[in-house]
Amino acid sequence: MNSNENIPYKIYLSESEMPKDWYNVRADMKKKQAPMLNPATGKPMTAEELGHVFCDELVAQELDDDTRLIPIPETIRNFYKMYRPSPLVRAYCLEQKLGTPAHIYYKFEGNNTSGSHKLNSAIAQAYYAKKQGLKGVTTETGAGQWGTALSMACAYLELDCVVYMVKVSYEQKPFRREVMRTYGASVTPSPSNTTQVGQKILAEYPDTTGSLGCAISEAVEYAVTHPGYRYVLGSVLNQVLLHQSVIGLEAKTALDKYGVKLDTIIGCAGGGSNLGGLIAPFMGQKLRGEADYDFIAVEPASCPSFTRGTYAYDFCDTGNICPLAKMYTLGSSFMPSPIHAGGLRFHGMSPVLSELYDQKMMRAVAISQSDVFKAAEEFARIEGILPAPESAHAIKAAIDEALKCKETGEPKNILFGLTGTGYFDMVAYGQYNDGIMSDYIPTDEDIQKCIEKLPKV
Amino acid sequence: MNSNENIPYKIYLSESEMPKDWYNVRADMKKKQAPMLNPATGKPMTAEELGHVFCDELVAQELDDDTRLIPIPETIRNFYKMYRPSPLVRAYCLEQKLGTPAHIYYKFEGNNTSGSHKLNSAIAQAYYAKKQGLKGVTTETGAGQWGTALSMACAYLELDCVVYMVKVSYEQKPFRREVMRTYGASVTPSPSNTTQVGQKILAEYPDTTGSLGCAISEAVEYAVTHPGYRYVLGSVLNQVLLHQSVIGLEAKTALDKYGVKLDTIIGCAGGGSNLGGLIAPFMGQKLRGEADYDFIAVEPASCPSFTRGTYAYDFCDTGNICPLAKMYTLGSSFMPSPIHAGGLRFHGMSPVLSELYDQKMMRAVAISQSDVFKAAEEFARIEGILPAPESAHAIKAAIDEALKCKETGEPKNILFGLTGTGYFDMVAYGQYNDGIMSDYIPTDEDIQKCIEKLPKV
Repeated sequence: MNSNENIPYKIYLSESEMPKDWYNVRADMKKKQAPMLNPATGKPMTAEELGHVFCDELVAQELDDDTRLIPIPETIRNFYKMYRPSPLVRAYCLEQKLGTPAHIYYKFEGNNTSGSHKLNSAIAQAYYAKKQGLKGVTTETGAGQWGTALSMACAYLELDCVVYMVKVSYEQKPFRREVMRTYGASVTPSPSNTTQVGQKILAEYPDTTGSLGCAISEAVEYAVTHPGYRYVLGSVLNQVLLHQSVIGLEAKTALDKYGVKLDTIIGCAGGGSNLGGLIAPFMGQKLRGEADYDFIAVEPASCPSFTRGTYAYDFCDTGNICPLAKMYTLGSSFMPSPIHAGGLRFHGMSPVLSELYDQKMMRAVAISQSDVFKAAEEFARIEGILPAPESAHAIKAAIDEALKCKETGEPKNILFGLTGTGYFDMVAYGQYNDGIMSDYIPTDEDIQKCIEKLPKV
Repeated sequence: MNSNENIPYKIYLSESEMPKDWYNVRADMKKKQAPMLNPATGKPMTAEELGHVFCDELVAQELDDDTRLIPIPETIRNFYKMYRPSPLVRAYCLEQKLGTPAHIYYKFEGNNTSGSHKLNSAIAQAYYAKKQGLKGVTTETGAGQWGTALSMACAYLELDCVVYMVKVSYEQKPFRREVMRTYGASVTPSPSNTTQVGQKILAEYPDTTGSLGCAISEAVEYAVTHPGYRYVLGSVLNQVLLHQSVIGLEAKTALDKYGVKLDTIIGCAGGGSNLGGLIAPFMGQKLRGEADYDFIAVEPASCPSFTRGTYAYDFCDTGNICPLAKMYTLGSSFMPSPIHAGGLRFHGMSPVLSELYDQKMMRAVAISQSDVFKAAEEFARIEGILPAPESAHAIKAAIDEALKCKETGEPKNILFGLTGTGYFDMVAYGQYNDGIMSDYIPTDEDIQKCIEKLPKV
């Protein structure tokens, strides 16, 4: 319910108000997410097993379901000060345009060169790699937000950064590639001849344009075959949600300062890094019975893991070399149509969020691509920020909720996550401007075929 | 001299601390800039003559050399609140990397979708057009920052926006074009068949890739031949420097709050909109004898109007249809080489800044393109912001000044303007990353040939 009308357009916290600890929502979950399993043994992955792929301290964070607050090291806090706090924006112009009694807020994570919230976890993961005395880290990137973020973090810490970029993106998104190269990363189109798995795929499919799953496989192989390297991942993992909790913590501090009590919290969801971070402290309140919120996960209708997937153990990668995670999934063989330009293409969902969704602690909606871009354009014109297509999923859902308030007269307080900017997505915007963007929605049969291939656990 | 060490990484003013008036530096100039002349009569342009091309209130601002403070209308102040205050950043990481005793600050104007400071004047010019009851405005754009800014302002005020974009940029920078289209602007590659001047040029040079001068001519023709339209310009003019004074006013308020007394103020200079805005209130102090500063204008060695031009009456456009302005100029026929990717390509300089430079109130340096991109990359890696090439001119000069302090041991306070981000300049960064960027410096003969063609006044 609305109280304070003296809220500025943008609330910036002072440095002293910025979080000093990450918040680990798992500590407040009575029923925890299911553990990752070793596909060879069917048993939970041990710290030692995970340590071959990930940095030691990150493995500890991955497996820590109990510690509520984990201190943010000073180096990371100083890095955060370079681009954080991010503004909590009151969407006065959007409210007025919609004629809604709702108050709409968004936490804008796009005001940094990586263009998204991904930097929050990239600097953390690079920091622990550096602390462990490693030479470098490897990762994959599709559209390039995560790869850019990791490149920036590694440049700051003078750490080597090896990025496998899905070949079609490498060729069609040369600007993202150049940003990464400007930050000193080595960027290789995947599949490549630099790994055995890449060589094998190229021998079998010489004309393939690559996939995220293949790029993951190459990045992992590079890490485990090169001493001094580990693999890092920008979403899905528990540790990533932990780091991203800075989004929700800052938002909560800002809203608390002005006495704003939220009703609805909305985030787009691909692997779950933004949604998990945004809702973290609010979900904690709900889990502890201190407050109630309507949490809404927004996913693309073309890749609807929450709304049309199944809750089961599955591989995180299409190459099936990663551990098994229990999550809402469309099956690791599911690939959204190439006509889908709206991001959030991952077949599964963070195990933590999957468990919370299964416990009915949140709900989910799926939105078609043309509705997403329509909302994106409207938002850009009204609020002056050109959003990433991913972020525009949340915008569309927020507009829908605000319009419901217009019907019912309820002055709800709505918060959504504006995860990033769309400056590197102008090919997709161009398609929309030219009226040649179309929607793809998988059939039940499409999904069923992939679900049938799920591993037996 | 440095006093306060408790300065945060970023200083954000509160909404109530944001400027309520623009500051008109002309009011404090004892010797004013020379008036614009009508090329046909050789006499100063009257308000009536200017009113055929520009909006009435903007003409009044253009000709007002006396009013020190001009109130910022509430609509514009509300729009400013959507993306301002811009942060005043303390470059702690850069200082540490350079090992300098200097304290380096920058005012970062790139955190908005137009990607630069241009939005500060775009919203003002669109506002006065709307207030006058006009249907729309016309303009030209080269790289696209100004066109993007104007499109955003017009979308907000629901005003028609007609942009002539230099053909080579229209084709090679499709992303900027799509941002403008997303904001509802009509973007036409120039030269075009939509104007008489365009048709004439196309008949004569069917394969031309266009020029800024030609695009200006088309935009002006469209405005004067379509009832309800006026022409707007993003730099050079007195009114633009007035609107851009928000940059300097915010910076001064932020520094005053922390008791920081500047020694050196550095801005890149093309037409002068950023430099004029950044230095405005500080130059006012210097003109009134209240303080002294070392002002440095930084220009590209490929287009060195201050450092190698002459102070004379000249046309602002290569088509020679605009009024004559007295300014430092390389001659309106001067064109920087196509290999110059670093922006700031205008042949002349704001008349106000030209007069101040002639009075030795500031100095100027010219920097080669490869030095600019080297500084840009260094800055991106250290401070986490990928700068526009234009802005990187100021970065390079600031680094040079800070390194001088390292030699002398002087703990100077240095402020520079970081006008924008380079997200739409990745083709140039790619050339730099690939080691294929080269420098162009015009010969004395190149410049002399153009100076000889200056109009006789």
